[in-house]
Amino acid sequence: MNKEEILIKTATEKDIIVVYDLVKKLAKFENEPEAVTAKITDYYKAFAERLIVIKIALFNDKIIGCTVSYDTFSTWKGKMFYLEDFFVLEDFRSKGVGQMLFDDFIGEAKTRDCKMVKWQVLDWNVGAIKFYEKNNAIIEKEWYNAKIIF
Amino acid sequence: MNKEEILIKTATEKDIIVVYDLVKKLAKFENEPEAVTAKITDYYKAFAERLIVIKIALFNDKIIGCTVSYDTFSTWKGKMFYLEDFFVLEDFRSKGVGQMLFDDFIGEAKTRDCKMVKWQVLDWNVGAIKFYEKNNAIIEKEWYNAKIIF
Repeated sequence: MNKEEILIKTATEKDIIVVYDLVKKLAKFENEPEAVTAKITDYYKAFAERLIVIKIALFNDKIIGCTVSYDTFSTWKGKMFYLEDFFVLEDFRSKGVGQMLFDDFIGEAKTRDCKMVKWQVLDWNVGAIKFYEKNNAIIEKEWYNAKIIF
Repeated sequence: MNKEEILIKTATEKDIIVVYDLVKKLAKFENEPEAVTAKITDYYKAFAERLIVIKIALFNDKIIGCTVSYDTFSTWKGKMFYLEDFFVLEDFRSKGVGQMLFDDFIGEAKTRDCKMVKWQVLDWNVGAIKFYEKNNAIIEKEWYNAKIIF
């Protein structure tokens, strides 16, 4: 597989079923397979309402990776683009696909005139942390997440 | 000051200048006074584009606290309401104002049919962590933030 054979493009509604499956694979990789309670209809609705932007990496017309991101606002920095999910299928890792998807995410944020991009990474995911540091990301360890699930 | 004298309401454009000042006070409290590079014009734009929801706590017509939140999407849970900023002026703390603002935030999330609320808290802010735990929040310590500022 050459990089030239990979195509990054904006997802259309018909791609969502595969993206939903990738999200569930990522949750499994993150040791939380049961955590995905969102239904595919929630995805269709969020996509139709332009609440999320989905990009896909294609190889031979097969979706092998994706990013899910959204516009939001940092009270400190201004307009922000947030990377909610980022996944490459296991068989296609370490081949530059992740870098292409990440570059596309950064490019999209700049096109949208965002002042900052933000996302999260699990503390044990050393490979991902190295990847982000190589991409000049600032890694912050002093914030806890807090949440209430209804 | 009685709780009855506190009014929680949705901010209008004219309140933004005070909210912007509260955000800067919060950044100072979090030991990052220089971190706020967003301009007040960024706030006006985000507010006009409905990218942010601002609620204010009023006492004698004076803004003594606020929340800044936004609609977003969790690929795991579905529609989510995110609490970006939450602040009560020092002189008005421990009087129930924060609880009123937080209850309003939760109520707003439910009205918007969100499946989850999420926010962040600094690891040393023991008072805030206690407050959130009292409100049945799950505190997650295993995620790092990553960001790139343009």
